[in-house]
Amino acid sequence: MEKIRVSLPINSYDILIGHHIEQHIIDSIKAAKLSHESLIVTDSNVGKLYADKFKALLKEAELSAEVHIIPAGEESKSLKEAEKIYTRAIEAGLDRHSAIFALGGGVVGDLAGFIAATYMRGVPFYQIPTSLLAQVDSSVGGKVAVDHHLGKNLIGAFYQPKEVWIDLSYLKTLPKRELYTGLGEVIKYGIIEDKDFFDYLDDHADDVLSYNDEALFHIVKRSCEIKADVVGQDEHDNGIRGILNFGHTMGHAIEKETNFARYNHGEAVAIGTIGAAHLSHELGMIDDYTVHRVVKAIEKYHLPQRAEGCTVDGMMHDILHDKKTVNGIVHWVLMNGIGNVIIRDDVPDDAVKKCISKIITK
Amino acid sequence: MEKIRVSLPINSYDILIGHHIEQHIIDSIKAAKLSHESLIVTDSNVGKLYADKFKALLKEAELSAEVHIIPAGEESKSLKEAEKIYTRAIEAGLDRHSAIFALGGGVVGDLAGFIAATYMRGVPFYQIPTSLLAQVDSSVGGKVAVDHHLGKNLIGAFYQPKEVWIDLSYLKTLPKRELYTGLGEVIKYGIIEDKDFFDYLDDHADDVLSYNDEALFHIVKRSCEIKADVVGQDEHDNGIRGILNFGHTMGHAIEKETNFARYNHGEAVAIGTIGAAHLSHELGMIDDYTVHRVVKAIEKYHLPQRAEGCTVDGMMHDILHDKKTVNGIVHWVLMNGIGNVIIRDDVPDDAVKKCISKIITK
Repeated sequence: MEKIRVSLPINSYDILIGHHIEQHIIDSIKAAKLSHESLIVTDSNVGKLYADKFKALLKEAELSAEVHIIPAGEESKSLKEAEKIYTRAIEAGLDRHSAIFALGGGVVGDLAGFIAATYMRGVPFYQIPTSLLAQVDSSVGGKVAVDHHLGKNLIGAFYQPKEVWIDLSYLKTLPKRELYTGLGEVIKYGIIEDKDFFDYLDDHADDVLSYNDEALFHIVKRSCEIKADVVGQDEHDNGIRGILNFGHTMGHAIEKETNFARYNHGEAVAIGTIGAAHLSHELGMIDDYTVHRVVKAIEKYHLPQRAEGCTVDGMMHDILHDKKTVNGIVHWVLMNGIGNVIIRDDVPDDAVKKCISKIITK
Repeated sequence: MEKIRVSLPINSYDILIGHHIEQHIIDSIKAAKLSHESLIVTDSNVGKLYADKFKALLKEAELSAEVHIIPAGEESKSLKEAEKIYTRAIEAGLDRHSAIFALGGGVVGDLAGFIAATYMRGVPFYQIPTSLLAQVDSSVGGKVAVDHHLGKNLIGAFYQPKEVWIDLSYLKTLPKRELYTGLGEVIKYGIIEDKDFFDYLDDHADDVLSYNDEALFHIVKRSCEIKADVVGQDEHDNGIRGILNFGHTMGHAIEKETNFARYNHGEAVAIGTIGAAHLSHELGMIDDYTVHRVVKAIEKYHLPQRAEGCTVDGMMHDILHDKKTVNGIVHWVLMNGIGNVIIRDDVPDDAVKKCISKIITK
């Protein structure tokens, strides 16, 4: 088992990563002095596989838990669903020291985290991410949110978990497409911070894609280390944390243009990653071969390289109205090379449009 | 003008208190580098008196502001109203650096603060409290919340404003009953921290009740100093901040038993203050004369001394199910004397019941 520290001014915490880490979870809960009543939030897919087992684990740690199951899918990340969970928590008698456990993927983590951040002005929160995407990205860093009908993640908070428990065994039941989507973010970590890691991913695609224990452990661990390091420098996303947004500017636009239906998040980010590589090349920051390496890595991990059903104008509009765009200025994360990115706000629209056209098909 | 600092580990801020502090507000906004679009949240009572004027002030500071007016009253502190404000903020183009201004009493401050805490994971927030209760209590300390149909303030956060602007001129248009309810909390500050201040209140009731400028300035300033000091020691309410709850344990029960209709918050707290004095006496902590002084001060400021329509059993039930009650243990704030309180969790139910019976009439 590996323990990674997320070091913050206040509320630092550990990410535990391993196969079958049940005993650590029990010990950790017992040490935390939580109130007796607690709440597990999970979804209809993960719940039927793991909810009973996790509830039994909490019982071993002498906690009583209610299980609240949300319908699987982004639609559950709503204030309406949140209100149901508040009611459930109140009726179950949760107090200020009662824990909320998020057992599932990114939707469950974001929603349960928003509840934990706001129920009685904040209660102890634990992340138990079961998808690769959640393990390497959304469960770490304290971004919690629900969606508004006018945009994703518009209602939320920075609220750090007490601990993140990453049991790699969960990945064994993950559908292939969900594995790939997580790998989109994993490749991103290599590009933004660590050329060796990118090379590892390039060399070990077969191991990773065949769920080799050692390979999964390595990629999850390294991804969490990089994210923990970046978040530790800029918890509230006012500077360096922006580099985690690599590939996401075009990625978000692709998701929006395709009504969040055709591509899942990691797939859209993969295409956006290629777009950002093209844009870096267009601005003279990287050579042809580097772009080629990025495209090949995406391809190797069964991720799409072009977005169907998007237009240049539609994507430009979305980019200019993205949540990250402040006073109309877009902050682009661009490559100086593999493992080395910078944030630029001086990118001409024409260059952007040219590169969008390279990653879309009508 | 007086400036009081709320010193916190991060996000310290100033409370500005005075008559007509417009120029300070303009200077402060200009220095804050906010995005151009902003939102004023106010209610139907305050809005018609002051919204246009405040919007014009923001214009002088080069901000554009939308005004969102909520119906006056506690019913507006709901997720439903919050959702309308999120929509308004998105449609008005507010980004991560856009400010939200709470112009009004406690309901406006709590609701607008909750929006500011959660819109795009937190945007700059300014409190402009217009009622005495909001000026001396709810606008300072960062407690923001909306109500759930099963209980008040159950959904919220700790989210500090960037600054609190207390213009005492607003009090001139405050209905008498609203002045009295604020004075309930003001008396509380004397009891918990400062015997001299209690004596001042005892001696200067005529000045305060006739809206004497100097008297109002003194009581608001001293109340804010005490609150800032306590909050600075315990932002997240895990210890000493509990003393601010003096009079509130029975006060909340009175509000609940009378369906939040018969008494407003300060009135219920005033009665609860008398109850807490009786309980302190019952436990041998203070003498008869001290109880008498507390009762007389409450009376002098036209606040009620007994709650109509409550029962001992009903109140006991509410106290045991209060949000502050953790794992079934009630934390009572009790008097060792005027200006000196402690928190006790060893108070026998019989003593509580006896003292409840002294402050209720069927």
